[in-house]
Amino acid sequence: RINSARLWDSLMEMAKIGPGVAGGNNRQTLTDEDAAGRALFQSWCEAAGMVMGVDKMGTMFATRAGEDPDALPVYIGSHLDTQPTGGKYDGVLGVLGGLEAIRTMNDLGIKTRHPIVLTNWANEEGARFAPAMLASGVFAGEIDLDYAYARQDLEGLSYGAELERIGWKGPEEVGARKMHAYFEYHIEQGPILEAEEKTIGVVTHCQGLWWLEFTLTGKEAHTGSTPMAMRVNAGLAMARIFEMVQEVAMAAQPGAVGGVGQVKFTPNSRNVLPGKVVFTVDIRSPDQAKLDGMRDAVEARAAAICEELGVGCSVERVGHFDPVTFAPELVARVRGAAEKLGLSHMDIISGAGHDACWAAKVAPTTMIMCPCVGGLSHNEAEEISPEWAAAGADVLLHAVLETAEV
Amino acid sequence: RINSARLWDSLMEMAKIGPGVAGGNNRQTLTDEDAAGRALFQSWCEAAGMVMGVDKMGTMFATRAGEDPDALPVYIGSHLDTQPTGGKYDGVLGVLGGLEAIRTMNDLGIKTRHPIVLTNWANEEGARFAPAMLASGVFAGEIDLDYAYARQDLEGLSYGAELERIGWKGPEEVGARKMHAYFEYHIEQGPILEAEEKTIGVVTHCQGLWWLEFTLTGKEAHTGSTPMAMRVNAGLAMARIFEMVQEVAMAAQPGAVGGVGQVKFTPNSRNVLPGKVVFTVDIRSPDQAKLDGMRDAVEARAAAICEELGVGCSVERVGHFDPVTFAPELVARVRGAAEKLGLSHMDIISGAGHDACWAAKVAPTTMIMCPCVGGLSHNEAEEISPEWAAAGADVLLHAVLETAEV
Ligand SMILES: NC(=O)NCCC(=O)O
Ligand SMILES: NC(=O)NCCC(=O)O
Repeated sequence: RINSARLWDSLMEMAKIGPGVAGGNNRQTLTDEDAAGRALFQSWCEAAGMVMGVDKMGTMFATRAGEDPDALPVYIGSHLDTQPTGGKYDGVLGVLGGLEAIRTMNDLGIKTRHPIVLTNWANEEGARFAPAMLASGVFAGEIDLDYAYARQDLEGLSYGAELERIGWKGPEEVGARKMHAYFEYHIEQGPILEAEEKTIGVVTHCQGLWWLEFTLTGKEAHTGSTPMAMRVNAGLAMARIFEMVQEVAMAAQPGAVGGVGQVKFTPNSRNVLPGKVVFTVDIRSPDQAKLDGMRDAVEARAAAICEELGVGCSVERVGHFDPVTFAPELVARVRGAAEKLGLSHMDIISGAGHDACWAAKVAPTTMIMCPCVGGLSHNEAEEISPEWAAAGADVLLHAVLETAEV
Repeated sequence: RINSARLWDSLMEMAKIGPGVAGGNNRQTLTDEDAAGRALFQSWCEAAGMVMGVDKMGTMFATRAGEDPDALPVYIGSHLDTQPTGGKYDGVLGVLGGLEAIRTMNDLGIKTRHPIVLTNWANEEGARFAPAMLASGVFAGEIDLDYAYARQDLEGLSYGAELERIGWKGPEEVGARKMHAYFEYHIEQGPILEAEEKTIGVVTHCQGLWWLEFTLTGKEAHTGSTPMAMRVNAGLAMARIFEMVQEVAMAAQPGAVGGVGQVKFTPNSRNVLPGKVVFTVDIRSPDQAKLDGMRDAVEARAAAICEELGVGCSVERVGHFDPVTFAPELVARVRGAAEKLGLSHMDIISGAGHDACWAAKVAPTTMIMCPCVGGLSHNEAEEISPEWAAAGADVLLHAVLETAEV
């Protein structure tokens, strides 16, 4: 079993970097805070005897040597970047849980045939640079490196320029590494495990996603002196699209969600009807046909709404991954580890996207989840118990050791 | 008659300060650009033999002496601040049209019994600091000076601090000046004069306004892993309020408008349902009962919409003025001047608010309007013709001279 207190201490230590405003964290991708978090992680990996590699997307790979020089490594990974108002565990638990598993192997003098590589994927959250899971997407060959470098934040700064600025652009070709297997441990970010009183989620699938970034073009005009009949009201079109997204998601129940988290009005002045409105619709489902049907419905109905109001409508698909089925043999190994450790568990579908979704394209992959209080995530109030944290890390340790062959 | 070329040159000269991105201006209140515009205006006033006074709100008053030391001054005013993507004429035409009228008096050696004071009101637009017409509101005793100083922009900078920073906090008590009469010349900012092919709008009334700033409190949560039934969706509540405002405004036709120009989502990340949504509803009507009825309907129906979604709803009335009836004797004088000059004219109600609305509380007041192309304003593409600009300035000159007694 892992050292629960040491894992918790490391989580709290990392949470000191990029503190939020309400007890959580703001350690967004490629900020100075991200760089500081990376440096701390690197120092811990080196202290645990691992060797660090960094690829051209800024993803960090810390290797614990194996006994067979020809065996492909078993990968453990997640992310240290956070939302602007993120929690202390989303992503971080997977990286530091993996670190704790390796520290425990060191304590117990355990050797494995396969090397073990602990990974901190760059830009998992996609909060600053869309899409989410950007670096793992490039690693899996699903996203173009130049496209990734050109992604911009709301200030117009590019991924490539910011990666160089913080000094974490590595020499490795992205995706050059081959994996024997990939494991990711993560908090659920949803309410199911807690409601069902299970400590371990055995993740069998992950739902797919579309991010549809709409740009609506209205006529910038005075809110007071522009008669109702003369308005080309992009804000009203946006409102109707929000309501329509809600309808589309409700019609696709169960097993689907839809919503909007990001909006930008231009010029954003109280007495100016907006000339431009940009927002991103987020729709998800574990069912491929349902997911793509929702995308088509949202795009078609948005176009009709805008046409009726005379508002210009363009849409860019800025994020996407298909629903994922994880590797059955690894899923069974996770389930078996939970059984062996006497931990309550259930099969679960991940509602959030994870780097595991892209890793699954290039290696046998699975995930382990632990509950979070009230299902709350992407919120500074995100919370878990030290017992939950340790239970998932124990399962990770056992499943990885079995896969890496002691 | 005024010197049309000189007026146009001054307009184009001022437009060089704080250029926009599409041919207009970004010279927002209390920015460095505002300070530069003020300095240029001051130099022009001094060259025209006027003496500058500045009050504690930063409003500038340039005095042309009169012959009777006991006669109260006739005021001409408007504003040099702009929207973030504003036009070259909104406000500026009134100030520089007034300057041109005074330059013409100087050229012709005209003396008046009453002094004439040319005014550049601070923060007319209200784009950076709500409400609009802030300094004239304090001048009229309708807004508290400390309240005005405490108003903040989206970055949290206060009016008081920014006024000191740009060095334009004057010594005069706000509202200490007494006016014999107040004239404001402005572009229409609406489509009526152009459609009716009239060069001069004789402004009889101004519609009243409410700015209702809503703060909706949702539950910040993951867009992917938060089931539809568990959402406390402040963005959806906002969408329903936008639609409702449209309904309320349409139900109040004719003679009413309603819309939203400013929105802020927090944390504004694509995969986070917003914890907080702030936006301002702008509703207007020339009919007091209709205006207040719209306000009550919007507030009550917004509360019901939020209640149904479990979203917290608070509203702050951040801007207001009642419908205004301008002084009949001055209105008649403007109409008479247009007649005498052979200019086509019609009576008109101002759709936008103006400093004249507050001046009307403390002095006989009226306004003169000229058309603008396509009724477009609060848009960098705002346009007028030099002939229109000159016609209104001629009417201003004649009406002011009659009032100031040659
Ligand atoms: N786990 C997680 O929050 N990932 C961000 C990508 C997503 O929005 O699902
Ligand atoms: N004239 C003008 O645009 N004033 C700003 C105040 C308003 O929104 O009416």
